[in-house]
Amino acid sequence: MSKVTVLGGGGWAIALAKVLNENGHNVTLWSALEREVEALTKERENKVGLPGVKIPEKIKITNDIKEAVKDSKMIVMAVASSFVRSTSELLKDIVPDGQIIVDVAKGIEDGTFYTMTEVIEDVIPTVNAVVLSGPSHAEEVGLQVPTAVVVGAKTFETASFVQRLFSNDYFRAYTSPDRKSIELGGSLKNVIALAAGIADGLGYGDNTEAALMTRGIKEITQLGVAMGGHSRTFHGLSGIGDLIVTCGSKHSRNRRAGILIGKGYTLDEAVKEVNMVVEGAVSAKAALELAHKYNVDMPLVESVNQVLFENKPAKEAMRDIMKRDLTHEFPDLVWE
Amino acid sequence: MSKVTVLGGGGWAIALAKVLNENGHNVTLWSALEREVEALTKERENKVGLPGVKIPEKIKITNDIKEAVKDSKMIVMAVASSFVRSTSELLKDIVPDGQIIVDVAKGIEDGTFYTMTEVIEDVIPTVNAVVLSGPSHAEEVGLQVPTAVVVGAKTFETASFVQRLFSNDYFRAYTSPDRKSIELGGSLKNVIALAAGIADGLGYGDNTEAALMTRGIKEITQLGVAMGGHSRTFHGLSGIGDLIVTCGSKHSRNRRAGILIGKGYTLDEAVKEVNMVVEGAVSAKAALELAHKYNVDMPLVESVNQVLFENKPAKEAMRDIMKRDLTHEFPDLVWE
Repeated sequence: MSKVTVLGGGGWAIALAKVLNENGHNVTLWSALEREVEALTKERENKVGLPGVKIPEKIKITNDIKEAVKDSKMIVMAVASSFVRSTSELLKDIVPDGQIIVDVAKGIEDGTFYTMTEVIEDVIPTVNAVVLSGPSHAEEVGLQVPTAVVVGAKTFETASFVQRLFSNDYFRAYTSPDRKSIELGGSLKNVIALAAGIADGLGYGDNTEAALMTRGIKEITQLGVAMGGHSRTFHGLSGIGDLIVTCGSKHSRNRRAGILIGKGYTLDEAVKEVNMVVEGAVSAKAALELAHKYNVDMPLVESVNQVLFENKPAKEAMRDIMKRDLTHEFPDLVWE
Repeated sequence: MSKVTVLGGGGWAIALAKVLNENGHNVTLWSALEREVEALTKERENKVGLPGVKIPEKIKITNDIKEAVKDSKMIVMAVASSFVRSTSELLKDIVPDGQIIVDVAKGIEDGTFYTMTEVIEDVIPTVNAVVLSGPSHAEEVGLQVPTAVVVGAKTFETASFVQRLFSNDYFRAYTSPDRKSIELGGSLKNVIALAAGIADGLGYGDNTEAALMTRGIKEITQLGVAMGGHSRTFHGLSGIGDLIVTCGSKHSRNRRAGILIGKGYTLDEAVKEVNMVVEGAVSAKAALELAHKYNVDMPLVESVNQVLFENKPAKEAMRDIMKRDLTHEFPDLVWE
């Protein structure tokens, strides 16, 4: 029984805190928002973020970051990706060297193009940053629906430690040394979810969405490999697994925004309508800049950018994608 | 303008005949069933197989195989996989050496474990057998919904010829030299669709299905590579693309049968209920035998077989899958 800490009061934070509590660990949940801590303590539930899932009484809820992380064997960074840097700043002077911090937020930082573990390490170079990712709706994990994720760390020892803390008979964690690809897949898949949504909004069908998802993951894989990742990882739980669950979900903000854009909304109008950050739009821009930097051909990502930021009609973008020069599926496969 | 022939009177045969007709080719559609030819000629529609899609008047419909294939530049084999061998027998003495035959039926032959192009070549060794596969519901292709497929052939010249005959602004074909993997992916994906259906029938969620699909395609990829295929192809349109469209479809027989089995039906009861061949059950057996033959570890395929053929309760099989020894996602990735 180890003390572990979850930072964040949203649905994913609570679902993971509940998993760790059920595994017999001593869990402290921290939120930066005093009002959130009060509400969670009183109601033992986040009625917006994870309605219907009770926060077990044994989980301590606090607004005091020092108390939250003191002697913690593992800190789970479950805040929104835009708060990972500022939350890391709070930890900077109070965590010991080698502190295990498991990031579960997904995103690429605007400007730096850092993944979230890179943001954490940028602020606190002495920590042991880990990523946990995969197809995992918080709503389902909260209800003990069988779920599989991957834990990426620099060393097997660390990955294996985190794997054992999380795993039980409905939550299965695999280990991986390929942290970077896990994070890239988890972030860039939102661009593809947006594209699939656009196709849906245009009135296209399952054939179109499956083709966009397949060609999209191919582009992301090529970029990831150019950036030093392993192609396998993009075909794993944090890559196609997460893409499948995102595209299949009616709840995905990226998908919903895409549908509106396919129907003729501008990006701004769509963002206003879904009333939340659409990470896919941020990731689309990042992906295109990375594609140029690493000299990777990403026609689908380019098209999404043209639709989002250059007012290219979605229908025209789709027609151009279909009408490109006929080519090979994987140009590097050799003919007899 | 070339004469091309489509063998089969089902939905996929008609949808492809329509694509080829729209591309300006001289299309002949052949069916082995005299009554089907009469009905199609009279109604210009297959009201069961592809309701609502008219067969253009320019498409010739015949029951005469000699007339159908005479001087044909390309014969499309669009019969059910269980009829590929007998239909090849009909062609045996009437097609010239080097005849291009494009198989679009998916399956592995019981007993021989041949893919469909291998069955065709087994009967007629002198033909040039090609495969066309990918995420492509006939209903959507019939309505000109944007669709992408892959054409696998021995030579680039052949693949490129078939690619050009089929491609237009809603139907995009890519080329590939990896015929074998294209066919294995298209057949074995049905086992995974069955597994995803079982999870659904057990009341599990999107997390579970995405995990099963991801781990399933990993197993199939490992088997395919052991059999001489390229891993990339399993991550392409005929692999994950087709898997996504199959698992996402409410119409998939494999998925529907899986749901019933998850709810406690036996395989026989489920097959009776969906009232059609469940290819996933045949493929599950083939996959397991191939796994043994090529010494590949396929825990998911094994579990599906235990549920289908050894009366193992689905819930127990799922629990065993979740509780296996904790492991790496991709054991061949190297740690620092």
